[in-house]
Amino acid sequence: MTTTGFFVTVEGGEGAGKTTAIRSIEQVLMQAGYEVVVTREPGGIAIAEQIREVILDKNNVTMDGRTEALLYAAARRQHLVEKVRPALQAGKAVLCDRFIDSSLAYQGYARGLGIDEIFDINRFAIDGTMPDLTLFLDVSPEVGLARIHANREREVNRLDLEALSFHEQVRAGYRQLLERFPDRIIRVDADQSESDVVRALSDVVTDRLHSRNTTKQNSV
Amino acid sequence: MTTTGFFVTVEGGEGAGKTTAIRSIEQVLMQAGYEVVVTREPGGIAIAEQIREVILDKNNVTMDGRTEALLYAAARRQHLVEKVRPALQAGKAVLCDRFIDSSLAYQGYARGLGIDEIFDINRFAIDGTMPDLTLFLDVSPEVGLARIHANREREVNRLDLEALSFHEQVRAGYRQLLERFPDRIIRVDADQSESDVVRALSDVVTDRLHSRNTTKQNSV
Repeated sequence: MTTTGFFVTVEGGEGAGKTTAIRSIEQVLMQAGYEVVVTREPGGIAIAEQIREVILDKNNVTMDGRTEALLYAAARRQHLVEKVRPALQAGKAVLCDRFIDSSLAYQGYARGLGIDEIFDINRFAIDGTMPDLTLFLDVSPEVGLARIHANREREVNRLDLEALSFHEQVRAGYRQLLERFPDRIIRVDADQSESDVVRALSDVVTDRLHSRNTTKQNSV
Repeated sequence: MTTTGFFVTVEGGEGAGKTTAIRSIEQVLMQAGYEVVVTREPGGIAIAEQIREVILDKNNVTMDGRTEALLYAAARRQHLVEKVRPALQAGKAVLCDRFIDSSLAYQGYARGLGIDEIFDINRFAIDGTMPDLTLFLDVSPEVGLARIHANREREVNRLDLEALSFHEQVRAGYRQLLERFPDRIIRVDADQSESDVVRALSDVVTDRLHSRNTTKQNSV
């Protein structure tokens, strides 16, 4: 797919500060002249919402891990087809809160289903539309969980309560992805202060936009 | 997975006579001493039924072909985990009306998503539990459609109404699978009379049961 759009995803463990990060990246992209679509799966797409309801239904206690992984991939596919791709094809920037790497880190690595196995079904789902840039907010589990508990606007959820060892596993999973996709995924130290994280993100995104523009000029 | 069970699937285009075939195969398996579980996806499994509802929802006109394929694989997974595997592990015979080959022939081949691509996501779903024997009822589209229209007990559905060329494609897909899995899939000419089809099925299943028993005795 040839597109003039720019597809950015933001990844990280619990309490990494994704929401703040996304607000600041949105500003950078707008200042670069992009119309920006901020989204997250299932993104208000009716079919993806229906799939999400099946995943989150509390009665579905017998849900198998592979069933869940296939459902996440299905919801991802529909969100991609109905929302992400049309925006990219219209030349917009799409800024997505979590995408394929969340499945790889959480289900593939931390839940033990296998990064390669989860990548295979997600490759089928996204069919070539990989992010142009993925920002991995690397937070230590202790800092992340402390942030969550300090944040009164947000209820503590099931994942928050899982053992620190699970969060360590998620982080180890993301770090494997960082080695695997060194050009696409950029690590930002999310233990830093908010202002330092915002500055680091701005530098990374600005750099990437600059090199994209340079590449485009050279290829004309 | 080591199991003393016996997993048989029945495949074929519209009007191939799967229902009659399954009744006769069930008799052969029972006479061989098996307790038989006859099933079809989603098989009354609550999670698989919920997934099926999303697939069949008439409002979901924007459903992408890959989303649908992932949902079928998810429903298959859950039916397998909750119903097929427990029965096989208890030493029963499981007789399933359509399984992985339907996805490969219909979605992979006839709908053009690719047999390899659909096989990959289904391999993830079934994780090693392939059928021991698959009976492919090979009916010519003209004969199959004539049977459907003569059968007043059953309403003509959307697939029935698709052009003959689609049914030819499904048949071509199954024939590719026959070449690919020559040990597992056995073709039965379903243009024959019902009594001839029943006799042919009985011969195939009896042969297979015999060779299974021989193999088991030799390996003791």
